[in-house]
Amino acid sequence: MEFKARVFDVEQGQNEVALNEQQAKELDLGLLDRVKVRFGKKEVVALVDYSHSVSRGEIGLFREVSDALGVAKGQAVSVESARRPPSLDFIRRKLDGEILSQPEVSAIIEDLMAERLSPAELAAFIVGVYTKGMSTEETVSLTNAIYASGGSLHLKKKPVVSEHSIGGVAGDRCSMLVVPIIASLGLTIPKTCTRAISSAAGSADAMEVFAPVCLSIKDAERVVDKTGGCLIWGGAVNMAAADDKLIKIRNPLRLDPKPLLLSSILAKKKAEGAQYVLLDIPIGRSAKVATVEEARDLAKDFEALGRYLGMQITCSITDGSEPLMDTIGPALEARSVLQTLYGGGSPNLAAKACVMSGVLLSMVRGFTREEGAKIAKHQLESGRALEKFKEIVGAQGGKPDIKPEDIKIGKYVQLVKSKEDGKIAHVDNRNISRICRALGAPTDKQAGLILKVAKGQKIDVGAPLFELYASSREKLDYGLEQLPRFNIVEIERIIIDVV
Amino acid sequence: MEFKARVFDVEQGQNEVALNEQQAKELDLGLLDRVKVRFGKKEVVALVDYSHSVSRGEIGLFREVSDALGVAKGQAVSVESARRPPSLDFIRRKLDGEILSQPEVSAIIEDLMAERLSPAELAAFIVGVYTKGMSTEETVSLTNAIYASGGSLHLKKKPVVSEHSIGGVAGDRCSMLVVPIIASLGLTIPKTCTRAISSAAGSADAMEVFAPVCLSIKDAERVVDKTGGCLIWGGAVNMAAADDKLIKIRNPLRLDPKPLLLSSILAKKKAEGAQYVLLDIPIGRSAKVATVEEARDLAKDFEALGRYLGMQITCSITDGSEPLMDTIGPALEARSVLQTLYGGGSPNLAAKACVMSGVLLSMVRGFTREEGAKIAKHQLESGRALEKFKEIVGAQGGKPDIKPEDIKIGKYVQLVKSKEDGKIAHVDNRNISRICRALGAPTDKQAGLILKVAKGQKIDVGAPLFELYASSREKLDYGLEQLPRFNIVEIERIIIDVV
Repeated sequence: MEFKARVFDVEQGQNEVALNEQQAKELDLGLLDRVKVRFGKKEVVALVDYSHSVSRGEIGLFREVSDALGVAKGQAVSVESARRPPSLDFIRRKLDGEILSQPEVSAIIEDLMAERLSPAELAAFIVGVYTKGMSTEETVSLTNAIYASGGSLHLKKKPVVSEHSIGGVAGDRCSMLVVPIIASLGLTIPKTCTRAISSAAGSADAMEVFAPVCLSIKDAERVVDKTGGCLIWGGAVNMAAADDKLIKIRNPLRLDPKPLLLSSILAKKKAEGAQYVLLDIPIGRSAKVATVEEARDLAKDFEALGRYLGMQITCSITDGSEPLMDTIGPALEARSVLQTLYGGGSPNLAAKACVMSGVLLSMVRGFTREEGAKIAKHQLESGRALEKFKEIVGAQGGKPDIKPEDIKIGKYVQLVKSKEDGKIAHVDNRNISRICRALGAPTDKQAGLILKVAKGQKIDVGAPLFELYASSREKLDYGLEQLPRFNIVEIERIIIDVV
Repeated sequence: MEFKARVFDVEQGQNEVALNEQQAKELDLGLLDRVKVRFGKKEVVALVDYSHSVSRGEIGLFREVSDALGVAKGQAVSVESARRPPSLDFIRRKLDGEILSQPEVSAIIEDLMAERLSPAELAAFIVGVYTKGMSTEETVSLTNAIYASGGSLHLKKKPVVSEHSIGGVAGDRCSMLVVPIIASLGLTIPKTCTRAISSAAGSADAMEVFAPVCLSIKDAERVVDKTGGCLIWGGAVNMAAADDKLIKIRNPLRLDPKPLLLSSILAKKKAEGAQYVLLDIPIGRSAKVATVEEARDLAKDFEALGRYLGMQITCSITDGSEPLMDTIGPALEARSVLQTLYGGGSPNLAAKACVMSGVLLSMVRGFTREEGAKIAKHQLESGRALEKFKEIVGAQGGKPDIKPEDIKIGKYVQLVKSKEDGKIAHVDNRNISRICRALGAPTDKQAGLILKVAKGQKIDVGAPLFELYASSREKLDYGLEQLPRFNIVEIERIIIDVV
């Protein structure tokens, strides 16, 4: 049937069209039923909305649909009822606890990418995976399907190695040291980073203080082929594209089913072309994984999947109960990283980066881990890692000669002091993230905070706890307002009670 | 923060607003995040969409939101980030296999009714119930919450009885006889019917051939207080309103979790004020329940729930493998019902209605079932049921003196004949529904078909199988086109093969 197009310039997050309610019902098209909309040789599948403002014979196209078809107002499009995508039956079978085959998992991810599944249908898939789990074979299929949904790097020099943290620790910018250390030793380490999702900064946000991180695949390959490393945003090269679509559904439900966590990370490592992968699993209160037992289980899963996917995977379990550096926020973290490369900065960061690099060197070069860590330390202390970092920054299009003091941080500063005596019992990653976001991070790179205390330290009334940084008075005030809701530093009094 | 309103006259199926993408990101509002939108004293919670066509400082309100707030273009509305509804945590706990308390189940249904849950979040709830199940106590909570979400009847004369089929059998218009039979015996039987969801006609669609079925609660109470019965559409009196919202999500996934099936039906029976309920569970190929064992399990669940809800429930298990009448489609079924009340019509329908009425009479009046069925048969044969039916039709605002021959059916008729010799092996409920819908039913009341054969019957080449009815040449052609896809009559050849 032919309809006259109207264009609604609104993004719906999925393909949608609006039909006259009465006419849609006559055509037996229910709310959110699927239709094929065709214009010339182009065709999309869209979900049906009802609208009284759309007349009979008209169709309202939302932005995703009008963009995909290239239709302008008044042009005629043809509409027909679309069949239910077969992947809905596979989702249904997952809900019934069945094991899906590789083509079935692929069909789900392909329909997801082609916008053939509604948010409710995707939610059913995610919940199915959450409640029924996935076998190793299914998770491998999912990893391969997510990998195939996006771009990938093809690098000249092998072996390709990679390092990745499952995240959750404030100020953990290890990769920004591991990449130049490893690349300075002649290995290839193309690091695709994430931006902050719920934290104050991702490695992509911090690296962007030095250089552009949104590179095309071609440019990224050029940078890595030239320097041995890169620190770019994975989203820009559209790696594991299906993963981004799944995250949109997972976030409101706060559902992170293990098979999706595993496949999301490994699809990206596969897209980097990595043969040797070191995965860091930070544990502890306010980290993503609570206990060492859980971390060991997760590590076993990663290693088993690696064997199927042709990657040698080693997992490190580290203490993630507290921030790694005392500076949090994109610019503040970038400054500490650069200071550390210059020989000062954060001793915690330097130590962790060298140990992690040591594990990678033991995997690829056959050293012991201790020997590897020593070699890494030498690269850092001799300035070779700094030279390599500058080279990478330059190749990505940034300013290689930037000094720590050149990095701009928020001009509006407020020191927060302790109101009681006691001992620092806990410094909370999640609440630090919330306060930094209230101050404007990660969009505002200059926002963040500097911790003045660490766990276990004894303090008196009036001792400095942390300093907030913002780029306007209003943002600083807003951050201060939120402090009572989100406790950053927990203080344990020496006498808890006297009875 | 204040925004200038624009109105997008498009129904989204949920509360949504569109913000300028850049501005939304600065405000840390992700796609589908929740905001509170306030105008004067009115407030709604809506999900955020991005739009480039909305300028900074503007907000696009979709129809549900602009209607709820009563905002016109250019007026200022205030927007603030809304907290995540706590019911999301309860949904999450159901996914983790926990048992929800009565207040937790109520919170989910209240948030559903207040549009505080997105389709993806509702899908998570439905899938959680599907994969993790619900205890009897949880199902009781759900029934009570769904009951409380809509209107209910308050009738003068007790006891109130009810009859209901879980559906799936073409031409099963039993209620249209049971209601006048039972009401003619002085009992109160307020029947709220459904419209067709996937079938050719619901009882509400067929009854509408005789009288209006969209009555207000007040009018429905008046009809029942006067005549002892009614046959109205449950949707119009807004009974179990939450159920309709859940169905919109369940349909595309074809998910019918048992606790939702149970609570959906029982919430409606509770809203009728029923004290004695007869539930019919048809079984067999192409019915909703396949085996007698499954039906017995379901019956036990219904009876157990009834005890908690203060209803005495009896279940009948009947053969639903084939259509009950040979006429399918709203007007064709209505005509057969009226003929049966006049003493002719469908012997199958008359027999089932009398047996069902007999069970109801045994529950309320202490007869044996056989005695009850005899009494019902007498009411039917003596014309008392017809008189009562006319009375109800008149009270609902229809024409009580309508004759079977007054009912209009499709003028475009096509007889379909057998192309082979053999025996009728199966007549398929689902495929009959699909063909009748292709012919225009249930919206077009005159569309449908008449079966000329029944299971087990031997036929020769050229024997009539069924007749299609449509109200236009085009619709008839479209129905004929669909015949090869949906096999209505399966014929078994006497010699299946000769080797």
